[in-house]
Amino acid sequence: MIDRFRSLAPRIIDLSADLRLAQPGDYLRWYGYTHPRPELLVERVYGLPELHREQLRTAKLVSGAGCNATATILALYPLFASSLVDVDQAVVVEAKVGSSEGGSGFSLASHHPERSGAVRSFAPTGHRHTAEIAQELTFHGQVPRIFFSATAVELVRGILATCHVFLKDDLEEKDIWRIYRQFYSAEPFIRIVKDKAGVYRYPEPKILAGSNFCDVGFEKEAGSRRLVVMAALDNLMKGAAGNAVQAMNVMCGWPETTGLEFTGLHPI
Amino acid sequence: MIDRFRSLAPRIIDLSADLRLAQPGDYLRWYGYTHPRPELLVERVYGLPELHREQLRTAKLVSGAGCNATATILALYPLFASSLVDVDQAVVVEAKVGSSEGGSGFSLASHHPERSGAVRSFAPTGHRHTAEIAQELTFHGQVPRIFFSATAVELVRGILATCHVFLKDDLEEKDIWRIYRQFYSAEPFIRIVKDKAGVYRYPEPKILAGSNFCDVGFEKEAGSRRLVVMAALDNLMKGAAGNAVQAMNVMCGWPETTGLEFTGLHPI
Amino acid sequence: MIDRFRSLAPRIIDLSADLRLAQPGDYLRWYGYTHPRPELLVERVYGLPELHREQLRTAKLVSGAGCNATATILALYPLFASSLVDVDQAVVVEAKVGSSEGGSGFSLASHHPERSGAVRSFAPTGHRHTAEIAQELTFHGQVPRIFFSATAVELVRGILATCHVFLKDDLEEKDIWRIYRQFYSAEPFIRIVKDKAGVYRYPEPKILAGSNFCDVGFEKEAGSRRLVVMAALDNLMKGAAGNAVQAMNVMCGWPETTGLEFTGLHPI
Amino acid sequence: MIDRFRSLAPRIIDLSADLRLAQPGDYLRWYGYTHPRPELLVERVYGLPELHREQLRTAKLVSGAGCNATATILALYPLFASSLVDVDQAVVVEAKVGSSEGGSGFSLASHHPERSGAVRSFAPTGHRHTAEIAQELTFHGQVPRIFFSATAVELVRGILATCHVFLKDDLEEKDIWRIYRQFYSAEPFIRIVKDKAGVYRYPEPKILAGSNFCDVGFEKEAGSRRLVVMAALDNLMKGAAGNAVQAMNVMCGWPETTGLEFTGLHPI
Repeated sequence: MIDRFRSLAPRIIDLSADLRLAQPGDYLRWYGYTHPRPELLVERVYGLPELHREQLRTAKLVSGAGCNATATILALYPLFASSLVDVDQAVVVEAKVGSSEGGSGFSLASHHPERSGAVRSFAPTGHRHTAEIAQELTFHGQVPRIFFSATAVELVRGILATCHVFLKDDLEEKDIWRIYRQFYSAEPFIRIVKDKAGVYRYPEPKILAGSNFCDVGFEKEAGSRRLVVMAALDNLMKGAAGNAVQAMNVMCGWPETTGLEFTGLHPI
Repeated sequence: MIDRFRSLAPRIIDLSADLRLAQPGDYLRWYGYTHPRPELLVERVYGLPELHREQLRTAKLVSGAGCNATATILALYPLFASSLVDVDQAVVVEAKVGSSEGGSGFSLASHHPERSGAVRSFAPTGHRHTAEIAQELTFHGQVPRIFFSATAVELVRGILATCHVFLKDDLEEKDIWRIYRQFYSAEPFIRIVKDKAGVYRYPEPKILAGSNFCDVGFEKEAGSRRLVVMAALDNLMKGAAGNAVQAMNVMCGWPETTGLEFTGLHPI
Repeated sequence: MIDRFRSLAPRIIDLSADLRLAQPGDYLRWYGYTHPRPELLVERVYGLPELHREQLRTAKLVSGAGCNATATILALYPLFASSLVDVDQAVVVEAKVGSSEGGSGFSLASHHPERSGAVRSFAPTGHRHTAEIAQELTFHGQVPRIFFSATAVELVRGILATCHVFLKDDLEEKDIWRIYRQFYSAEPFIRIVKDKAGVYRYPEPKILAGSNFCDVGFEKEAGSRRLVVMAALDNLMKGAAGNAVQAMNVMCGWPETTGLEFTGLHPI
Repeated sequence: MIDRFRSLAPRIIDLSADLRLAQPGDYLRWYGYTHPRPELLVERVYGLPELHREQLRTAKLVSGAGCNATATILALYPLFASSLVDVDQAVVVEAKVGSSEGGSGFSLASHHPERSGAVRSFAPTGHRHTAEIAQELTFHGQVPRIFFSATAVELVRGILATCHVFLKDDLEEKDIWRIYRQFYSAEPFIRIVKDKAGVYRYPEPKILAGSNFCDVGFEKEAGSRRLVVMAALDNLMKGAAGNAVQAMNVMCGWPETTGLEFTGLHPI
């Protein structure tokens, strides 16, 4: 249908997965089909403004980003872009996700008596978003070894991606702060959330419901080089439509926060 | 108080953390205090029947096991005991836990409007159960590199521990099945849960509420040596009092399932 | 199919609604169809042991009771049987029910993102259980004016029926205690729950999940003749299969609690 | 403290209960104390714009309304103001409320393992909001006989008040529609919600979280004069601070919806 859509609109943001990956071969591996229009993959821009803002300004074909991929990429981008990660160690990511991630189609698995209170390992391995995470975190030709798992929890909207990386060097937390600030301090929709006390010391998806924020936090393990980076977002906002609106704002030269000012509810 | 207790009862099961670790130095490192009675640590038995059944039969001083530790140890025991894990790779464990794990003391963090719907990173690093997990999974002097994180989710009773290990060899799932069966087929409270279809393909804590089962399942990642092992249990049963009753049954020579026959509710 | 079933088994407990009502005309009014086998209605016994224990001992055709009806009837039976209710005032009953009451068939209404956190007026008027409530609370030819409403809440198992009745006379709470004790003190599955302090002062369905209890409590309004009577049960146990097992125990002359000893979980 | 506050601000909106009731004697009866400043009660205006908009424009001392009272009053106001209710029959109101109604102070009752999944009769009788409901629904000197009960359910924000009234005359639903439209069609924060099909046929609090709407719906019982009127709102918005902002907008001559445009989330 893409030709028909392009004849109707000069610039398109596609929320499906059809344009997320740049390499045609990745479709066969992760999605199980041969991409029918590989020439479109050359042209398309991955629609995360935090990574591709300049390209988005003039892009004609923009791909939305996967919800779990968005959380994971935004959690880890400063570390990989700065070449701080020990590439000999696996990067394990565990996403805890709400039920709206499954869409509006109902099934026995989404039937309330079965889904209520679940802590359900629906994708221990093989989750398709792994492909775009690795793609977007590749710098200087170094493809990271991402091992992604997803667990459904009792929640409607929201994702918490917990990412376990091992650093090349034994950085202190203040060094890591500085790196994240350098990448994100000007970003309108990323907040670094890290406190020593209180209930909300780290990113928490529920208070982001309806907002376009991606909250990012981290904790360094004493005595090891493990860094745990957490990112929370609303999968229907920054993880889907909200991010698309943000990308559209960039594409159209409008203020990037237009239509996205809701800051969330507390308590909820 | 232990001397008073021992004068009252010849055999003791202690559910606190005071006797979980065998090495006095581990108390200083993980709990922040010098153990006042190190001679008791020599004598005590770690109270997981699946690992220490023979010792329990005659033990006089038995330590309960931590709830998160129980889930993690039972998930990984067959792999480490069989020397199948690549010890050069970190073992990342992410536990998703319910609110009853915090005990009966209330606080702002457990206040319903704050705790409801939480996906809360309460221990990204430094969780004390890490120490007993490493202790119990040490074989042939090889201490495993366990990296544990815990996230609170919307649930009252229950833990799901998701463990990411890398195997030395690229085993197939049927090989892994065989190993788990070999260790657990005679265990009254461990079930291997792994299905290709259906809603409950992997261990799920909610349907274990009130039961003493620890359900264990796994998924091998295609094209890599990652194995994801999941273990679910009720933290107030197999993760605490239920396990203690099971240990008592062993100690007293009673049928091991005495008082522990409840099999859980569905739906719940 | 009833003839086939009767040829297979001499005594039948039917959990459907086909035999709940004694008057054929009530089927047309409440269920919208003409009952095809009215002669069966003469023979059948309404399967609540608390009301019809003697008849059950020899009954051949027993009807299960509706889940909401069971809670409401057991809440109000002592009052109506003792002619204590002011029949000039309406009796308003509001049932709060969990999602398992809707059965195992899934739909958009039971889809987790829609059903989660619901406080949903699914039957403000016209609920079919009204008919059997009025039938079972009719004494001396006086049919009570029952006005029933049902609201779905966030819960899988459980019903709380809150019943508002006006008494003929301005009884004191100790008088009401005496009446309920007189009817229920020998009942194995009814507990009177009424406390001045604590969290669980009145019947609460969640701690009854999996149990066959119907907990009943009440509060008299100071300065008026309103009595609020609350009854809680698990709709899949005392509200369905559990009650049927209890009825079977009576029919077969077995101890009435056989197979029904589970007392519930706390916390849950 | 009121004198100090008045010396600081010429116009005050008080969210406490101190000024809700017009009759000093009602404080002794419902709150258990003698009101120390009865002269303030003469001056104060009950701050529901839907009932007292004109008085609010010039009021100097405005009382916030109770959350349960707001839902109940807005549900029933058109009926009582139009003298349609049979005053010989009791009006039973059952409010289902979320945990944020209890405020931010934590206790055992609000401890997550105890509060989770609750359907808890915390005020079967004697709820203080009954007084202001009766006060605001009094027309032509006729004080209605309101019987209020409140049940806590699993929800953080939100109230559903289900009100059972008996009409003087056997009106049809279209007559009732006309009356509610007449009162509320110009109201910016009241919507009549009543559908024959779909999941959200009647007011539902969860989709109002964060919004200032009070949704009102009703269902007439066939064959009787019972009318069930349901009102849903967010107790922290239209039930508290949101309503106060709306009152302030009226007092200051600003557009009444200023700062209150959020329309809620779905799914949630």
